[in-house]
Amino acid sequence: MKSVDEHRADVAAAVPALAARPLGLDEADGAVLAEEITARWPLPGFDNSAMDGYAVLARDVAAAAPAMPVLLPVEAEIAAGDTEFRTLAAGTCIRIMTGAPLPAGADAVVRVEWTDGGMRKAAIRRPVAPGDSVRRCGCDAQPGAELLTAGTRLGPAQLGLLAAVGEHTVLARPRPRIAILSAGNELTGLGGAPRPGHTWESNSFMLAAAARRLDCPVRRCPLIRDDPAEVRAAVQAAAQDADLLITSGGISMGGEHDVFKAALQGLDGVTFDRVAMRPGMPQGFGAVGEPPTPILLLPGNPASAFVSFWLFAAPAVRARQGLAAVPPRTTRAVLTAPVRSRAGKTSFAGGLFDPATGEVTPAAESSHHLTALAQANALIIVPSPVTALAAGDQVEVLELPA
Amino acid sequence: MKSVDEHRADVAAAVPALAARPLGLDEADGAVLAEEITARWPLPGFDNSAMDGYAVLARDVAAAAPAMPVLLPVEAEIAAGDTEFRTLAAGTCIRIMTGAPLPAGADAVVRVEWTDGGMRKAAIRRPVAPGDSVRRCGCDAQPGAELLTAGTRLGPAQLGLLAAVGEHTVLARPRPRIAILSAGNELTGLGGAPRPGHTWESNSFMLAAAARRLDCPVRRCPLIRDDPAEVRAAVQAAAQDADLLITSGGISMGGEHDVFKAALQGLDGVTFDRVAMRPGMPQGFGAVGEPPTPILLLPGNPASAFVSFWLFAAPAVRARQGLAAVPPRTTRAVLTAPVRSRAGKTSFAGGLFDPATGEVTPAAESSHHLTALAQANALIIVPSPVTALAAGDQVEVLELPA
Repeated sequence: MKSVDEHRADVAAAVPALAARPLGLDEADGAVLAEEITARWPLPGFDNSAMDGYAVLARDVAAAAPAMPVLLPVEAEIAAGDTEFRTLAAGTCIRIMTGAPLPAGADAVVRVEWTDGGMRKAAIRRPVAPGDSVRRCGCDAQPGAELLTAGTRLGPAQLGLLAAVGEHTVLARPRPRIAILSAGNELTGLGGAPRPGHTWESNSFMLAAAARRLDCPVRRCPLIRDDPAEVRAAVQAAAQDADLLITSGGISMGGEHDVFKAALQGLDGVTFDRVAMRPGMPQGFGAVGEPPTPILLLPGNPASAFVSFWLFAAPAVRARQGLAAVPPRTTRAVLTAPVRSRAGKTSFAGGLFDPATGEVTPAAESSHHLTALAQANALIIVPSPVTALAAGDQVEVLELPA
Repeated sequence: MKSVDEHRADVAAAVPALAARPLGLDEADGAVLAEEITARWPLPGFDNSAMDGYAVLARDVAAAAPAMPVLLPVEAEIAAGDTEFRTLAAGTCIRIMTGAPLPAGADAVVRVEWTDGGMRKAAIRRPVAPGDSVRRCGCDAQPGAELLTAGTRLGPAQLGLLAAVGEHTVLARPRPRIAILSAGNELTGLGGAPRPGHTWESNSFMLAAAARRLDCPVRRCPLIRDDPAEVRAAVQAAAQDADLLITSGGISMGGEHDVFKAALQGLDGVTFDRVAMRPGMPQGFGAVGEPPTPILLLPGNPASAFVSFWLFAAPAVRARQGLAAVPPRTTRAVLTAPVRSRAGKTSFAGGLFDPATGEVTPAAESSHHLTALAQANALIIVPSPVTALAAGDQVEVLELPA
């Protein structure tokens, strides 16, 4: 059986990066830059005031003191957004608002708190040095400065910076659109009372929410019957407007009843594997259609699908955006109770991690149950050679997004 | 001046919890439960096979061994989803698929890997104990079991569990819809070359992306001119279809030029404050309209607005969903270089945190610039009494979402 790391690497290697395309800033959230962004203009674009106050020549207020204010005539007022060209005459001051252009001739701003706030004359109670409370043109970025490198994921600060330097469109790889598919005659859609032998379809809700935690647009496809032709048709249809397909169930060893396997096995580039992990042993991956859309075939047991998503689908999303498919980040924690694991398998069990104490408490019930995972905020990882850990032992945990 | 903690508590106290309403599972992602969920039916709903294999009476295969298989006639096959009632006769076996209902009379399943996979007769090569590879009806949850408590935020595992137990609608507080407003004559929308004295509006892109990191639906409202009547009209309009308004800029001390302050000051329940932090000293909060929609008035400097969002808007979102407005989670880190802070102010400076080493490197440039924040993955927090920290000193960092 393959290790978890081997399988993640295999999956990522089969996931090509989406083509980069021009994205407006409103659609670029979460996208990954495919170009370097350099400043075309200085940021800020002009000398401006960092404070509400008075633009002055510093030497005119050198003698100012609380008990001995310097009195200057107020010659004008400049609000943010004013575009009239103004010049400060020596021995005078100009009222100025935060962000407003500094008048020619001024070399500093005295903040309003250090004055009497006068409209015709201002009493300046403190001296300033040249440059005080002035944001110089280009002090944040000079034209030509490298602002963001290719491969940067665009989040709040990066989008703010792009807007601030006037870049309304960037070349980037968008977040992959994810389609979630479920198949199985035993599954029924939500609603009504349970029928004997049937199970409510639940993985698509879980996996869709997980995909949204990666900021991906996601679609739950209609439930598919246990028919290989239906499955192939549904997969082809989903691939038309998705960048990554995620299925669950139908990939173990049951022949025609494992319908995703029956439908896709033998297709070029679709592989079914057994991975040394618990839960989640059966796994599949590959690509379907032309151009090929990557597909991840996760096991059907809800806990297996859940764990598999974080281990394999999350890195696949990174790969689809051209990023390294690094393993999910883990944190070292101390167990408050013992855990057991099967020899030869890496186990992932639900736990409650307290970041304040660094302690993690294993889920009380069988950790492979959905009820236990719904109480958990982390997965406790027990690597394959280890079969038992005691309270007080250190362990790695994978924190789950809220 | 108020402390950051005092201001966060004041903001949260002014943010009422949204009313809970019935939400379908597709719209409940990120919602907070307002009811306890107990199991109405057992989970799973019937005894079923945990493996592909053969349903048997354990005592019939007690003597099985790899070298001496027990041969049993295969009387039937049960696929997942089959609803026909079947009974196992002693001395026979029934092929069974994962998730399929266990036939009456059987007490265990032998997984297919331990057999020859025969269709008419099966050679069983290993013994099993009663209960092996069987998921008992109700083993995950018995009817009446408490599954989720009121106040639980619904994420992937919780939504999966709700679907698995057949709950298609829950009473919950949805994620607040956030409207982002910007005002200022100095601001221009993206596009074209910069005009003298003007600044591209960028905060709305940044704050919208930040709101999406909290899984909130978000809308950027059209840019407002520096006119108090226009601002009031825009705020009232935004409140019609938003649950939380977030503005930036226009709240410092410049009188009529600080247009959000000019428009909203004096309104019942709108407060403007000075908070002992850097960046981000001016802050405002309150509620507008009837029924009151909470509004957060953040400072206009991009770095100030960015820091303020994580400190005050994120807890406000929690409060709007009826959750405790806890401070943002921080992590202890070791500085790789010195940092300075102004006396009497808690400072928040961009830094690059490496979770593998626990080290954080302050941004090279002025940490209050957007360029520095766009390189950062964390905010380094220097509490107000401290004015300087050296390389090697410990510090708390607030990790930023990617």
